Amino acid sequence: MSKALFDKIALVGIGLIGSSLARVIRREGIARHIAISTRSASTLARAEELGLGDSYSTDAKEAVKDADLIIVSVPVGSSGVVAAEIAPALKPGAILTDVGSTKASVIAQMAPYVPEGVHFIPGHPLAGTEKSGPDAGFADLFENRWCIFTPLPDTDPVALEKLSEFWRRCGSNIDTMDPEHHDMTLAIVSHLPHIIAYNIVGTADDLESVTKSEVIKYSASGFRDFTRLAASDPTMWRDVCLHNKDAILEMLARFSEDLASLQRAIRWGDGDKLFEMFTRTRAIRRSIIDAGQEVDVPNFGREAIEHPVKN
Amino acid sequence: MSKALFDKIALVGIGLIGSSLARVIRREGIARHIAISTRSASTLARAEELGLGDSYSTDAKEAVKDADLIIVSVPVGSSGVVAAEIAPALKPGAILTDVGSTKASVIAQMAPYVPEGVHFIPGHPLAGTEKSGPDAGFADLFENRWCIFTPLPDTDPVALEKLSEFWRRCGSNIDTMDPEHHDMTLAIVSHLPHIIAYNIVGTADDLESVTKSEVIKYSASGFRDFTRLAASDPTMWRDVCLHNKDAILEMLARFSEDLASLQRAIRWGDGDKLFEMFTRTRAIRRSIIDAGQEVDVPNFGREAIEHPVKN
Ligand SMILES: NC(=O)c1ccc[n+]([C@@H]2O[C@H](COP(=O)([O-])OP(=O)(O)OC[C@H]3O[C@@H](n4cnc5c(N)ncnc54)[C@H](OP(=O)(O)O)[C@@H]3O)[C@@H](O)[C@H]2O)c1
Ligand SMILES: NC(=O)c1ccc[n+]([C@@H]2O[C@H](COP(=O)([O-])OP(=O)(O)OC[C@H]3O[C@@H](n4cnc5c(N)ncnc54)[C@H](OP(=O)(O)O)[C@@H]3O)[C@@H](O)[C@H]2O)c1
Repeated sequence: MSKALFDKIALVGIGLIGSSLARVIRREGIARHIAISTRSASTLARAEELGLGDSYSTDAKEAVKDADLIIVSVPVGSSGVVAAEIAPALKPGAILTDVGSTKASVIAQMAPYVPEGVHFIPGHPLAGTEKSGPDAGFADLFENRWCIFTPLPDTDPVALEKLSEFWRRCGSNIDTMDPEHHDMTLAIVSHLPHIIAYNIVGTADDLESVTKSEVIKYSASGFRDFTRLAASDPTMWRDVCLHNKDAILEMLARFSEDLASLQRAIRWGDGDKLFEMFTRTRAIRRSIIDAGQEVDVPNFGREAIEHPVKN
Repeated sequence: MSKALFDKIALVGIGLIGSSLARVIRREGIARHIAISTRSASTLARAEELGLGDSYSTDAKEAVKDADLIIVSVPVGSSGVVAAEIAPALKPGAILTDVGSTKASVIAQMAPYVPEGVHFIPGHPLAGTEKSGPDAGFADLFENRWCIFTPLPDTDPVALEKLSEFWRRCGSNIDTMDPEHHDMTLAIVSHLPHIIAYNIVGTADDLESVTKSEVIKYSASGFRDFTRLAASDPTMWRDVCLHNKDAILEMLARFSEDLASLQRAIRWGDGDKLFEMFTRTRAIRRSIIDAGQEVDVPNFGREAIEHPVKN
C-alpha cells in the first residue's frame, strides 16, 4: 500500500460509482479516512454492512466536514441540490469533484454554490456497468478506463494535478476537454447507444405478432446485446436525457436520417448499397479492440462463462 | 462416443456455421464420414488444414453423392443456386436441410429443385458469433441454443425426428413453426438488432464534431456493445435484408415510431415519460438470464477477461 494522497475523502452518493471508488480508495490506500454519505438510511446501512468506509452519515454536510477531497456521485439532476446542501460545510483548499455523465449542466448547477477557496473540478469516469447500488461496485471498475475532466478556466493547476493523481491511482487515464465537447462526445459514445437500446427493447416488448416469451427465448440471435444497456438505471438515464438534451437530439436526428437511408436501400433491394454500409463498420471494432477498450473474443467472451472448458 | 446417426453427412459451405457443425459432428461421433464442400479452393484448403472432414471437394455434387444428410450453410441469397447444383446428385431417402437466417425465401428458392424422395426440412440454428469462415467455428456453438425447423406440410415425421435427434446431439433444443412466423420473429430478435447496430456505428463514423479516434477511445461507455453485431459478415447481412424485406420493414417502422416518441419526450423534457420508458425494459434482461440465454454478470462478463483475478 502506497502513501495516502488525502487525509479524508468524502463520498456523497454510494451507488455503483461511489462504492467502486470506496473500494479502490481502500485497496490502494489513497485516503486515511473515507467518509460516506447517501440520501437514504437503507443505502447507508448497506454501505456500512459492506464495510465500505470509516464513517457514515445521511447528513452530507457532516460527511464533507474537514474533507480534502469530496466526490459527488449522484444522478446529474440532483447535483445542484447536493451542492447547495454541502457548500457551507466545505473546507477552504478542499477539492470538490463529481462523476456525472453530463458536464455543462452539472457545472451550471453546482458552480454557483462553490465557496471561494474550494477547487471545483468537474469530472466523469468513463466506466460503468448496467448495475446500480452499493453492492454493484468493484475496485477494478476504473482500470484502463478514461476519466475526463472539464475544468473551469481559472482552475488551480496544483489541485488539477492532485485530482489527476487520484484517478491514476484508481487505474484510470486522464483526458481534459471543454464541457460542450464532452457532452457532444458522450452523446454519441454513450447516450445515443443507451437510448437506442431502451427503444428497441421497448419496441420488442410491444409487439403482438411475436410474443414476449419468444423474444426472450430467441434473444441470443442479437437482441440480448441490447438488453444490457437497457437494464441500466432509469433515474440516471432520465437525468442524462434531460441534462444533455441538445447534443442528444442532434445525434438522434443524424441516426434517424441514416436509418431512413438504410430503410430505403432495403425497400428498393439495393444490395450494393447494403453491402457497402455493412462493410465500413467492421474496422471500428478492430480499432476498439486494438485500443484496449474491448476484449478480442467472440460474443464478448460470454462463451468462456457459458461453457467453461471441459476436462 | 455414441453410435453414429448417419453414415455420411455432407456439409455444403464451411464457414462459421458449417465448420462448427463439422467440429461437433466429429466430437460427438454423429457420422462415419464427413464430406466437405465449399465454393472456393482457398476456403476448402483451410478446412482441410484444420482437419474438419474426411473428404473435400469444390464440387458440391461430388460431396453430396451418397450422403444421408446434407446441410447447406451458405448466405441465404445463394440457396437457390446451390440447390440447383446439388439436386441431381442427391440420393433418394436423404435428408436435405439448411441453416439460413431467413426461411420463406430459402424455401421458395430451394424447394423447386428438391427431387422426389428427398426429405427437405428447412432449419435455422439460433447460434452464431460476429466472426466468419472455417477458423471461427467451435463445437460448443449450438449448446443450449434453439434450432427452429419450418417444415413443409408433407414432411415425413421419421425424417423430421431423425433431424431433430441430430440437432439435439449438437446440443440444441428444437422448435417448430411456420416460415412466416419464423421470419417475423427473427426480424425482431436478430435482423432489426443487426441493422440498428450497423446504423449507429455508421452514424458515429460520419460525425465531424467528434473524431473517429475519440469514438474509439471512449467506446466503453456503451457504443462498443453495438460494434459486435456491426462486425458481422456483410454478405450474410445483405442477403438477410434482401430476403426478409417485408418483416424487416415492418419492424423498422415500429422502431422509428417509438424512437420519434422518445425523441419528443426528450425535446419537451418529459421526465416522467422517460422514466417510465426506461423502467419497463429492465425486466426483459432478467427474463433472458433466467431463460439461460444470457450470462448473469455485468458487462457480459468482459471484466473476467479484462481483469483476471489477481493473486
Ligand atoms: N452507472 C454508470 O455506468 C455510470 C458511469 C459513469 C458515470 N455515472 C454517473 O455517476 C453518477 C452515479 O451513478 P451510479 O451508477 O453510481 O448510480 P446508483 O448506483 O444508482 O447510485 C446513486 C447514488 O445517488 C444517490 N441519489 C439518488 N438520487 C438522489 C437524489 N435525488 N439526491 C441525492 N442523492 C441521490 C443514491 O442514494 P440512495 O440510494 O441513498 O437513494 C445513491 O447513493 C451519475 O451521475 C451517473 O451519471 C454512471
Ligand atoms: N453467422 C451467424 O451468426 C449465423 C447464425 C445462424 C445462421 N446463419 C446462417 O448460416 C449461413 C452461413 O453463415 P456463416 O456465418 O457460416 O457464413 P460464413 O462463415 O461467411 O461462411 C459462408 C460459407 O458459404 C460459402 N459461400 C459464400 N457465398 C457463396 C455463394 N455465392 N455460393 C456458394 N457458396 C457461398 C462460403 O464459401 P467460400 O468461403 O468458399 O467462398 C463459406 O463456405 C447463412 O445462411 C447465415 O444466414 C449464420
